[in-house]
Amino acid sequence: MDDVILLAHGSGGRLSHDLVQKKLLPSLSNIMLSKLDDSAVFDASGRLAFTTDSYVVNPIFFPGGDIGRLAVCGTVNDLSMSGARPLYLSLSLIIEEGFSVSELERIVGSVKAAAEEAEVEIIAGDTKVVHHGQADRLFVNTSGIGIVAPGTDISGANARGGDKVILSGTIGDHGIAIVSQREGLKFSVAVESDCAPLSKLVAGMLEASHNIRCLRDPTRGGLATTLNELAGQSDVGIVIEEERIPVQSSVRAACEMLGFDPLYVANEGKLVAIVDADDAEKVLAEMRRNVYGGDAAIIGEVTESHRGTVLMRTKLGSSRLVDMLSGELLPRIC
Amino acid sequence: MDDVILLAHGSGGRLSHDLVQKKLLPSLSNIMLSKLDDSAVFDASGRLAFTTDSYVVNPIFFPGGDIGRLAVCGTVNDLSMSGARPLYLSLSLIIEEGFSVSELERIVGSVKAAAEEAEVEIIAGDTKVVHHGQADRLFVNTSGIGIVAPGTDISGANARGGDKVILSGTIGDHGIAIVSQREGLKFSVAVESDCAPLSKLVAGMLEASHNIRCLRDPTRGGLATTLNELAGQSDVGIVIEEERIPVQSSVRAACEMLGFDPLYVANEGKLVAIVDADDAEKVLAEMRRNVYGGDAAIIGEVTESHRGTVLMRTKLGSSRLVDMLSGELLPRIC
Repeated sequence: MDDVILLAHGSGGRLSHDLVQKKLLPSLSNIMLSKLDDSAVFDASGRLAFTTDSYVVNPIFFPGGDIGRLAVCGTVNDLSMSGARPLYLSLSLIIEEGFSVSELERIVGSVKAAAEEAEVEIIAGDTKVVHHGQADRLFVNTSGIGIVAPGTDISGANARGGDKVILSGTIGDHGIAIVSQREGLKFSVAVESDCAPLSKLVAGMLEASHNIRCLRDPTRGGLATTLNELAGQSDVGIVIEEERIPVQSSVRAACEMLGFDPLYVANEGKLVAIVDADDAEKVLAEMRRNVYGGDAAIIGEVTESHRGTVLMRTKLGSSRLVDMLSGELLPRIC
Repeated sequence: MDDVILLAHGSGGRLSHDLVQKKLLPSLSNIMLSKLDDSAVFDASGRLAFTTDSYVVNPIFFPGGDIGRLAVCGTVNDLSMSGARPLYLSLSLIIEEGFSVSELERIVGSVKAAAEEAEVEIIAGDTKVVHHGQADRLFVNTSGIGIVAPGTDISGANARGGDKVILSGTIGDHGIAIVSQREGLKFSVAVESDCAPLSKLVAGMLEASHNIRCLRDPTRGGLATTLNELAGQSDVGIVIEEERIPVQSSVRAACEMLGFDPLYVANEGKLVAIVDADDAEKVLAEMRRNVYGGDAAIIGEVTESHRGTVLMRTKLGSSRLVDMLSGELLPRIC
């Protein structure tokens, strides 16, 4: 019990109860979770947002975070990207037999810290254990519920010609942090994952403007894939300026070495906002006041031509089509 | 694309979109899911229930169901056990590279059918792919949201001395169906999983009586573990009568052969209700009218003595302590 996870920790019996009571609840305890009923019950009224994500990131500990922080931030961010204020998360663990109990406690500690930062509560949970070799260490699912304020209408389908495209900061940090940890690469300046909860950044933006059309976090598939999704959902064109897209020099160097295009590398603490042109500067100024928006920049605009596609004006002055990611760049990035 | 799942199906890029658009959405399509935003948004008002479960059952196809039906029923039942009417589910898949696309479609078909039976909608989803050998075929997470009617107060902590304990039907069917499929055992009468959504059964019960104290589905750990949980949460004793507990003869025979006690074998379509004695017969009669409650029986009662423990009066007339499951009986049963 004190060392590694056993199959019996997933039995639903005595050892499962001990694991939950002694190792998980002390970190996560709140009134609803502690009741240990089959569901958590809470009061709500209004428009609610609901989302789910499973996290299979490898390695589970990486520079700038771990699977626990990622699982909270990823789901908090999905709620935020719908314009919701995140309220409640569930936490479901699939653990490989033999996994270290102390590592599990460390990850649950990260869950707790990230949840506190994002001001969400973990109110429902589940633990399963599979035989050694039937899962890779630990997979985590979080689902989340948030509340959307009246009048907020954010959707990938809302972009209009003339809108501005804002990016909240540098791209590629998460993907490069993961691949460098996985492959044991050393760079002169270490790259850390940007894994962060963007709920407060979004709250400030929504307060600054009622004319934010779309919000999306460029995770798997990177900025290029996210922009293509938005162009497709809204049936608009998008033009971005290469020189306006912030990329850390260490990330750029790593991408060159590895043959990656930063446009396709995953982020876990960035967002793309499509905003009415009249409000873009106001929203940008507000974003830059937040710790997770200091490098925010207007990187392009929405057009009514070349609908469904994304063009980039390169530093050399030419234009090129930026397609959605095809194939797989970095498996198990999140 | 047409044969097996590739890592690129989990990339977040083109192949991920194709998989979702062509293979998953056609089965599950509804307005919220089809928008493909980061969260689904819906209106709600009142007391909401929220729950999560990951499903790692092995094998993924078994007599009476598959992992898709199980993942819907299990989460629908967790909501129902809080007295909630289930409304919305999320569906998150962790798929092993090389998994058959046609098997995936079959499982998504089961998800759809079970969701229709339970009258819930799948409104949020996620798909991850891990390398061959890093997961065992397919793991599924469903989280769910339901609404609790005003005045309903169901909790494992609500049992009182004198209450009656009602069981909705035969025990052990799911566990024996799984183990027989897994081990290639043949019985003279095949055992099928009882995997079923109990939402309508519970709705009828709640209509019949305002004095239902506790509801719980005896899944992992079986009836014995569930009764111990309820005795512990409510700080009461529970006494059950062995001869009143319905067990199919084929399940009993299989348990004898395998050395299992049916009290500890998992169920996926059964519930335990603790009900005020005055309403017990009325609730029982209502349960028997439902297809999933035909064999319902009053199996015992709640006492104010021997708090926190469960006693069973055996067919031989003696009494024995029925403890929570210790160790692991059947790994990956759900």
